[in-house]
Parts: sequence; structure tokens; C-alpha cells
Amino acid sequence: METITTDGVHILPVGGICAPQGFRANGCYAGIKASASKRPDLALVKADTLCNAAAVYTRNQVQGAHIPVMREHLQATGGKASAVLINSKNANACVKDGPSKAAALCAVTANQLEVSPDEVLAMSTGVIGQSLPLEPVEDALPELCAGLTADAEGAHKAATAIMTTDTFAKECAVEIEVDGKACRIGGMAKGSGMIHPNMGTTLSVLTTDIAMEPALLEETLRQVVDVTLNCLSIDGDQSTNDTCLVLASGASGVTLTADSPGYTLFRTALCVVLTNLTRMLARDGEGASKLLTCTVVGARTQADAIAVAKNVIDSNLLKCAIFGEDANWGRVLCAIGNAPVQVDQDKISVTLQSKAGEILVCENGMGVDFSEEKAATILKEEEIRVLVDLHEGEARGTAWGCDLTYSYVKINGDYRT
Amino acid sequence: METITTDGVHILPVGGICAPQGFRANGCYAGIKASASKRPDLALVKADTLCNAAAVYTRNQVQGAHIPVMREHLQATGGKASAVLINSKNANACVKDGPSKAAALCAVTANQLEVSPDEVLAMSTGVIGQSLPLEPVEDALPELCAGLTADAEGAHKAATAIMTTDTFAKECAVEIEVDGKACRIGGMAKGSGMIHPNMGTTLSVLTTDIAMEPALLEETLRQVVDVTLNCLSIDGDQSTNDTCLVLASGASGVTLTADSPGYTLFRTALCVVLTNLTRMLARDGEGASKLLTCTVVGARTQADAIAVAKNVIDSNLLKCAIFGEDANWGRVLCAIGNAPVQVDQDKISVTLQSKAGEILVCENGMGVDFSEEKAATILKEEEIRVLVDLHEGEARGTAWGCDLTYSYVKINGDYRT
Repeated sequence: METITTDGVHILPVGGICAPQGFRANGCYAGIKASASKRPDLALVKADTLCNAAAVYTRNQVQGAHIPVMREHLQATGGKASAVLINSKNANACVKDGPSKAAALCAVTANQLEVSPDEVLAMSTGVIGQSLPLEPVEDALPELCAGLTADAEGAHKAATAIMTTDTFAKECAVEIEVDGKACRIGGMAKGSGMIHPNMGTTLSVLTTDIAMEPALLEETLRQVVDVTLNCLSIDGDQSTNDTCLVLASGASGVTLTADSPGYTLFRTALCVVLTNLTRMLARDGEGASKLLTCTVVGARTQADAIAVAKNVIDSNLLKCAIFGEDANWGRVLCAIGNAPVQVDQDKISVTLQSKAGEILVCENGMGVDFSEEKAATILKEEEIRVLVDLHEGEARGTAWGCDLTYSYVKINGDYRT
Repeated sequence: METITTDGVHILPVGGICAPQGFRANGCYAGIKASASKRPDLALVKADTLCNAAAVYTRNQVQGAHIPVMREHLQATGGKASAVLINSKNANACVKDGPSKAAALCAVTANQLEVSPDEVLAMSTGVIGQSLPLEPVEDALPELCAGLTADAEGAHKAATAIMTTDTFAKECAVEIEVDGKACRIGGMAKGSGMIHPNMGTTLSVLTTDIAMEPALLEETLRQVVDVTLNCLSIDGDQSTNDTCLVLASGASGVTLTADSPGYTLFRTALCVVLTNLTRMLARDGEGASKLLTCTVVGARTQADAIAVAKNVIDSNLLKCAIFGEDANWGRVLCAIGNAPVQVDQDKISVTLQSKAGEILVCENGMGVDFSEEKAATILKEEEIRVLVDLHEGEARGTAWGCDLTYSYVKINGDYRT
């Protein structure tokens, strides 16, 4: 899989949330939902010290119970945390005992780790509307804590335990050099994109060994999420539980403020990690056979470019055409015209790209003669990019999604029962 | 199929655009696209006199060529028309010669009918980006004009000729009494909903034998379309060619102004016709096996209610669950929470309804115990209604859609090639 990288940001060949110094992780099967497969369902991330922390949450007005509790804890500690417990199989949302269960998850974990409950954050993902059983978590915690390791294996166990119908664990870690010191950012995420809003879809945890004030950490996270996770869409449904958390241990010995020369590089590195995680989420969208990327150039602003790109990758019709490997550019034009951005049809050009090459299919808003055979060869690849030039300005933006397949309908036609 | 009716508005058992006095219609196969099936592809509606006319169009910024030409003609005549030519199989959109072809369609029809070209309106629906051949239209026009009839058969031929992948023709006609005189409204529409934006999706033509000034006719049409056609969504994709036109012949001898006692009844009758056509479009959505309706009550405003209802029937996840006959109410809550309307999760209740009964599945934002067997029986029906109560106010609104099935993916995966 092609990875996104930028000058000065080095992707580590192996590594997730334990790549930065100061973090241990583990994952296990606790049995939150009776399951013959015994797929892991409980993950724990432990920082060696109290870290600065920042989080962004779903904008859905219906929210999972862990979100208000997480907000409270981060407020009580002034933006600090030392541990994160994540369960899959149950979203702990739209149930009466949701808030008390979310608090209890933090309390039992704090008790086991011998820290203050406020320092512990809990996140849940899975089915909406079913009461979360606490006993399996309590029973599993001693072993989960005892098994925490600071290596890639611990990170991978945690990344695996937060999966729901994901087909692979999503991890990424990068290294940058600041003030002559190596600093790292690691991350893990679960999907499958925003395809399962009732599974509490996207959770991600990022770690870094840089030190940064919580307020700046949050502002930086927000900026980066806006151009990465927030540009991912599988079906336009935003989950009730979406949460992205970053923990900064400071163990690298590097402290960054907004004025530090290394700050921009750090933000770029964070963007690389989240972009790669976003691409993994899109590629592993439920039932997806192809990763669909739309890059819009020539827009007046980045926000305009992103809005148009999102409209394109959100179009069910285009997604079906990509599944069918059909160069149906009329659907791209239709999606662009419906975007909440003023465009001039007569200036728009569209190019289809993949590893197999590229082909211009529309210029000045009109179709151009193109080779159907060449288009078919390009669309056979697993990653398709739609490049749109609005010819209105200099700004650009990208959004990520996937095709719409029979499997998507099948999985979502009988998910709950 | 259940039909929507209202006191004083009588649905005619048979009838479309020729039900009102003063209109003749016909449809034929002209061969706009070579096709072994020779499905009709050209329709003509002729008014006996110059009618007042009003139209509303797609809000997509990428628009089919017939739309600016139609605007020009209606402006030149001060809102009058005597004939409408509609072709299927080609959208006449995103092609260089689109505007000249749209004008030429009007000119050749006017020539054959011996009227002014400005009095003729043309609409196109079909594939985007291919040049529309004029010769088949010219060749077919003499016979098409000669065969115009004022009966239900002529209306049905026209309704059939505008179909693309529709599985049945969509027609409806009603009768009301104003000032002791019987007046009628007839209508036809094509689909399949907004499922095919690159086919120039929804076209509809309405006729009435009431007389009304064009400005009031347009205002009335706009109001009614806002709560009918504009509440229909199959996949959130708005076509480039959507057009809804109404012609008022005045042949009933009844003239209505905004102050006429009969005006409100007329508007209600127009709403009945368009609601029934909207339901037919939703039921015949591409690949659809079920009609999905969402009615939201207890909203602060009708606009709020409609916005929430649209979000619900637009959710791919809910549409898959309805296809799978799974009472997955968490997806309804998720869609409500994402609507651009302020809601209070703790007040929301959700009931699933069909001919087989109804079942409360969520109250105060939390799941309630319900019989899965009873829910399964309800969801087996062909028309499913999701009733949402926001408990915020007194307003209500409805939106229409359909389920998302394997067939949708299949049809749209290989439509163009």
C-alpha cells in the first residue's frame, strides 16, 4: 500500500502506539459479548507518567456515554491522562446505565493500575443500545495489566483488540528530528471507516514522546483531524462514538510550543500518521474492494477543495461505478455540481488515475474522447484516484472513501441480528 | 398501493396528463439510442391553446442543456407554452452542442405543430456526455404529432416514453370541485428517483384545466414541490436535469387567484398528485424492494421535521437494514443525531410501522424491550414507515426513499458500458 510521507518525516517499518517512548500496551479477549471466535475485545494503553492529552469527538448529537465522561476527566485533570481502556463489541450508547458504566470502566482500571480514576479514559465501540457487562472487564484486567509491554507486539495486540468488523489492524508510526533529538508519533485506529455508525465506528489513539501543552495539543489535533479523519467518508453516516485521542509523554526530552522551530514539522508528522490511518480505514471500509481517493486542485480555498472532494467520494453512484470499473465521469460532474461550493461547470476537468496510468475524461465541463480500454486498465487497480481541477484558484484538498459493493449491502443487511 | 388523498380531492381511477381538459399526448420509439428492445423514447404533450406554465429545476450547478433553454422560452413568452417534447436515453448534458440541440428540438417540433418555437419546451433524460442525434426526432415527429390523443391511452404512451430504467409508468390524476365546476390536475413523472443523476433523473409534467397566472402557478408549484419531490431521496445525488413543469389550460372555465376560495383546495390537490408521484418514484427506486417512509412529528418547524426525515431515509446503513428486515433502530438514532437540526436525544422515540402493525423500539432515546418476532413480521411488508417523535413541538414532515439492495449495486456498477 502506498504511504503518505513528507520531507523530514520517516515512516517506521513496524510500529504503532508504543513506538514513542513512555508507553506500554496490551489487548485480550474479555468476553464482552459471548463469541465462539473469542476475538480480542479489550485494549489498554498505559503511559509511564501522567501525559498531556487532547481529544476530538464525533459531532453527532446522539453520543456514546464514554464521550461526556472523557470530557469530564480531561477537564478535572487539566488535560492529562495516564491510561486508556478501550472495549469493542458494545458501544455503551443509548442505554440507561451508559454514563455509570463508562465511569465504572475508568474506576476499575484505575483501581488495578493504582492511579486516580480521573487519569483513566475509557472508550467503547460496538452495537448501540445494549447494556455493557462490567464483570468480564473486571475479570480480564489483572492479566491485561500484567501483560503490558512497550514493544510493537503490545501495540499490535491493542490495535487488534479494538477491531470490530475490520479485516486488519490499523497502525502507523513516524520519526522526526527536533533539536537534534529523535521524536516519534504512533497511532492506531479502528474502522471500518464511518460505515458502522451503530458500532461506534472510528476510534483512534495517538501517542508521542514530545511534550506539549494540552491546549496546543488539542488545537494541533483539531487542525490535523480536519484534513485527515474528517475527510474520510464511507457512507456519510457519522458514528455516535467517534473519538480521536492523543497522549504526549514528553519522554523524548523535546518540548514544543507554537513558536518552536520544530512545531510545524511535528504537525506535519501528525498529519502523516493520521493520513495513513485514514487511508487504511478507507481501504478496509465494509465490503470495499477499492480505495477511492478524490483530490481537488484549483479551488479558491482548501475548505472548498475538501467539500468538493467529499461530495465526489460520497456519491453512491460513483462508488458503484468504481466497483464496476466503469469510467462514468458524468457521476463525478454531478457530484461536483451538488457540492456546497460555487463552481463553474465550463472550467472543470476530471482525470482518472491509478498505478496503471492516468486518463483525462472531461475538460471544460465536457466529455473528451478517451480510450475505454485504457480507462478499464486504470480502473482495474485497487486504488483509484479522481483528480478534479476546478480552475478557480490555487488551493487543493483530498478526501478518502471506497467503492460500494454487494458485500456492503450483505454485511449491513444482517448486522444486528 | 396505498394512495395519499385528502378531503375534497378525488383520485381518478385512471388518468394522467390528459385527464384535465385541453391536452393531448402521445409517445413513440424514435431510436435516439440504437436499441434492440425499441422501448419508446420520445413523448409529446400538446395543449389545445397557449397555456400558462411554470417550472422548477434542479439546484445542481451542473445543469442539462434543456434547462437554460426552457427558462429562456418561458421568459420570452411571459410564462406560456403550448407543447412539451421529452426524450429519454440521452440527457443532452455536458456536451458542446447541448444548447443548440435543445433549441433545435423546440424548433423542429414547432415547425411540425405550426406554432412559434418559443411556445415549445423540450426536456431530456438519459446518459450524460453524449451528443443527442436530431435526425431520429425529426423522422418521428410527423407520426408522433398525428397520433396525439386526449384520452388516457395517449397520456400513458407519453408516460411510458419518458421512462429510463423505471419498471412502471408513473401517472396520477385528481378531480376537485371549484365554484360548482369540476377541475382536474394530471401528472406524469419518471424515475427512478434521484438514483441516476447521470440519466437526468426526475422529470415530471403536470397539467390542469384551471386558469392561473404564471407567477402564482410557479409559487404554488414551488411550495408543493418542497414538501413532495424535494422530500424524495434515493441516494442523495441530485440529477443535472431534474425538472418539474405544470401547464394550466383554463379549459375548465375556472380561474384561480391567491385570494380565491378554491385556491387552497387546488394547492392541496396539486400536493396529492405530486405526493403520489413521489411515492411511485420512491417505490420504483433502482433495485428497491421496499418503499421506506419516515414521518417526523413533534418538531419545532416543518423544515426541521423534513430535515430529520430526509436524514433518516438517506442513511445507507438504515436502508441496508430495511432490506435485511432488521429492526436496527440504532441507525435511526444515529441518522437523527447527524441531522442539521438541534435535537434532544433524551426525548426521541421511534416506532416502526407497516400494514402488519407497529412496534415501539426506542423511547426517551433508549432502546425498549420489544418482540423481535413482531418486528420481523412488520418489516416483511413492502412499505415500511419509521415514525419519529422529537417531542420538541407540534410540526411534522415526511420524506420518502427506498431500501439499498444488491440490485442497486449491480445496476449502477455497469450502467454506462
